Amino acid sequence: MSTTVDLNADLGESFGQWALGDDEAMLAVVTSANVACGFHAGDPTTLRRTCELATARGIRIGAQVSYPDLVGFGRRFIDMAADDLTAAVIYQIGALQGLARAAGGDVSYVKPHGALYNRIVDDEVQAAAVAAAVVAIDPTLPLLGPAGSASARAASAAGLRVVTEAFADRAYLPDGSLVSRREPGAVLTDTSIIVERVLRMVRDHTVVAVDGSAVPVDPESICLHGDTPSAVAHAHAVRTALADADVQVAAFVGDRAGRQ
Amino acid sequence: MSTTVDLNADLGESFGQWALGDDEAMLAVVTSANVACGFHAGDPTTLRRTCELATARGIRIGAQVSYPDLVGFGRRFIDMAADDLTAAVIYQIGALQGLARAAGGDVSYVKPHGALYNRIVDDEVQAAAVAAAVVAIDPTLPLLGPAGSASARAASAAGLRVVTEAFADRAYLPDGSLVSRREPGAVLTDTSIIVERVLRMVRDHTVVAVDGSAVPVDPESICLHGDTPSAVAHAHAVRTALADADVQVAAFVGDRAGRQ
Amino acid sequence: MSTTVDLNADLGESFGQWALGDDEAMLAVVTSANVACGFHAGDPTTLRRTCELATARGIRIGAQVSYPDLVGFGRRFIDMAADDLTAAVIYQIGALQGLARAAGGDVSYVKPHGALYNRIVDDEVQAAAVAAAVVAIDPTLPLLGPAGSASARAASAAGLRVVTEAFADRAYLPDGSLVSRREPGAVLTDTSIIVERVLRMVRDHTVVAVDGSAVPVDPESICLHGDTPSAVAHAHAVRTALADADVQVAAFVGDRAGRQ
Amino acid sequence: MSTTVDLNADLGESFGQWALGDDEAMLAVVTSANVACGFHAGDPTTLRRTCELATARGIRIGAQVSYPDLVGFGRRFIDMAADDLTAAVIYQIGALQGLARAAGGDVSYVKPHGALYNRIVDDEVQAAAVAAAVVAIDPTLPLLGPAGSASARAASAAGLRVVTEAFADRAYLPDGSLVSRREPGAVLTDTSIIVERVLRMVRDHTVVAVDGSAVPVDPESICLHGDTPSAVAHAHAVRTALADADVQVAAFVGDRAGRQ
Repeated sequence: MSTTVDLNADLGESFGQWALGDDEAMLAVVTSANVACGFHAGDPTTLRRTCELATARGIRIGAQVSYPDLVGFGRRFIDMAADDLTAAVIYQIGALQGLARAAGGDVSYVKPHGALYNRIVDDEVQAAAVAAAVVAIDPTLPLLGPAGSASARAASAAGLRVVTEAFADRAYLPDGSLVSRREPGAVLTDTSIIVERVLRMVRDHTVVAVDGSAVPVDPESICLHGDTPSAVAHAHAVRTALADADVQVAAFVGDRAGRQ
Repeated sequence: MSTTVDLNADLGESFGQWALGDDEAMLAVVTSANVACGFHAGDPTTLRRTCELATARGIRIGAQVSYPDLVGFGRRFIDMAADDLTAAVIYQIGALQGLARAAGGDVSYVKPHGALYNRIVDDEVQAAAVAAAVVAIDPTLPLLGPAGSASARAASAAGLRVVTEAFADRAYLPDGSLVSRREPGAVLTDTSIIVERVLRMVRDHTVVAVDGSAVPVDPESICLHGDTPSAVAHAHAVRTALADADVQVAAFVGDRAGRQ
Repeated sequence: MSTTVDLNADLGESFGQWALGDDEAMLAVVTSANVACGFHAGDPTTLRRTCELATARGIRIGAQVSYPDLVGFGRRFIDMAADDLTAAVIYQIGALQGLARAAGGDVSYVKPHGALYNRIVDDEVQAAAVAAAVVAIDPTLPLLGPAGSASARAASAAGLRVVTEAFADRAYLPDGSLVSRREPGAVLTDTSIIVERVLRMVRDHTVVAVDGSAVPVDPESICLHGDTPSAVAHAHAVRTALADADVQVAAFVGDRAGRQ
Repeated sequence: MSTTVDLNADLGESFGQWALGDDEAMLAVVTSANVACGFHAGDPTTLRRTCELATARGIRIGAQVSYPDLVGFGRRFIDMAADDLTAAVIYQIGALQGLARAAGGDVSYVKPHGALYNRIVDDEVQAAAVAAAVVAIDPTLPLLGPAGSASARAASAAGLRVVTEAFADRAYLPDGSLVSRREPGAVLTDTSIIVERVLRMVRDHTVVAVDGSAVPVDPESICLHGDTPSAVAHAHAVRTALADADVQVAAFVGDRAGRQ
């Protein structure tokens, strides 16, 4: 009986004159595209084109919602009041729905970005604010996030489907959280290590933390980063290794019942 | 047989700490609410609340799309390329759809704002770009604009319903265009003059231009401004005068066939 | 022997179409104008005019530096890295210096705004980053802040002159910090209470906290807010009461030696 | 008797996470660095570092002022009122002065960017607004621009020194203006053609337009672009060719008297 996993990556993160990542190449590898929504990256023209590319390939689009922080690329915590955060997340999902629908597709899930993603691992108030936004605009949209987080709890409590994920190229702390990007070694760059980690996450349900301990994980989706120089090469290596290991790469389904 | 006219006004134009207009009071008068979309005004929290207020009163919501220009309040022409403008308009309509739907309502029409509105009176390229955006996101949405404009022609050519409007408190040039806000006298402030103009527009289908000539108009909707100090008073006076003149004030319908 | 105190207020906080406060009226009362720098409020045209008004009256201009957050009016903590904060503060002071010099004046001191002000009461890293910015651009500029704060310590350690201040209309906690604006009662609105508090701060060197305890203060400057409906009335009342009490209202001097 | 020419390039045009150009490499070639001011590109941290790199190499810093348009990279005309443009230019020059002075250097000249640069070739009102800004903040700063332009005339009329320039890699129209970037062939990419054009500009005082006609030019400075893939290679080739042709590459001086 085969195992199935989804591969997701952040796309649509160029901004005007500034290019970032290779959306077209990444869309040849992933099964879910976390498309920026303009608050940390992604001008409307870029986002529209990314939605068109994803739709043309039949790749599912997720709304990669963020704090409003272009200059900080959404990587800095902002102490937003809950109702401001809820409205900002609705605004972003709606904007991307418009562009996705204009491209013949739609938004199929929501994934918080950067500092917002990290914050709602622990912050119950902001986690509830994000979940409330998704419920308000479309309660059938799943929320991507780490297992055991405040965001997963808030989403479940709000009646949302939670899709758990793990990171192919990020260092883990023993408690299952990510090493901060401000720390050295936070982002892994060695392809063979990245590949091996993903296989272990998917087959053995563990990841080795920075102290050598094995952290239990059971992700439905694996996040591949799209903005590093070797992003595309890493993504291809991971996908090939999964195929070789008889792991099926496919978009996650509406509920986890069908999963092995 | 009674005449019918719609009354529209710009709402949701506060931004963060900065308040502008009295949305709640204006919603007691108008039949269509042009709600800002965040590009010239309107933070997500303000927009969400405006959508909630409009929905609670059963007032139809329109997307008031704009050039991206908060500091200029969307009142300065920006030489955007056509595809950038189309994507920006889709983005804005989508964002407001998200907030409107979260409020239990929806976006029912599109009205360009400020410099964009004025530009596409004549600019065929930008007019077509705006029409293309509406078609891409929802071809059933009517576009509000002045009769005889490039925007009306582009919308019609794209298969959109055009709803023509005239302005209660703006001075007109003999060719039917508006006196620029940079000119003195561009915005009328005398309530009795405003009321009389509206009655003449609706019943006699003319407006007197700055040179004294009578310009033919036949608006389905009258635009009342919401951001002047006397906006609410003017709006009430206009609505009362219309009622006294046996003109029915009602939201415009899907097509003009039923209109007198 | 007379006591002397400076009165400061936040000015230049309009933005484009959105007006806030009455700069001209406040400049008739205060002796130091904290002029926004464009990051939380203040478009260049507004800031230039505020600098011209201040210079025409001989009122000293301070740079009211902020996190980059227009939609949040600078009232939300942003987790900026130290070097980003330092560069952002230099940028803002430089921008205002340009406008002040173009108006025939100059920037004479620095006062952090909103969430930045509150954060560096305790955050040693961000406090040092702000102090480093002032040292880098002009080490003769004093920094306004609360006594006993990390910002005061960091400024002193960096060789800057610290000017301590207290707030006329803000509720205090027993530890001398301000009640958060998110709490009810954070901003006082009763003129007689505000006047009495200022007199007590200046003459008795205490302020009564929300629990009734007397908190010691010895401010060189009193902050009057300019953005409340009654701001101008409060400011006049305070200035009149100080005159009646034989307290001299004057801009703070380069060092505190000459003070009583 | 040797000829002298200045080489300038646009630097500091990264923004947050988005990198653009190779400032360090370009600073090894040019004699004048047009540093962005945050309105079309350049976050404060990037700008500070670029100022530090330029100062460390003894390269003169110019303020590359722009319309406020990050998403359009300052390449779209914005119909700003004259006083808004003047204030915006003062703000930008002041901000860069702050960062340059913090780096131990200063701003030595002003060069408008992108659409603003192109607009004030003809628009007398905006040209005068830019010149007024430079006069207001520091009338000793020269303005870089094309000979025979409204910007050169406005600067001269305002008492500013004008430094004329020509473009190494841009196609020219017969009237001496640039082919729009929206047209194919607007930017030259062949190194040998670029090098030959620069030599001909500097020694023969002509450039060949797209129709084959020879356009007279007599630039004090040559603009090299820093944001194309081959920018650094082109710049080195130009500098080497100038040296081989016995042309001295040096920063322009305060007036043109000493030039051959």
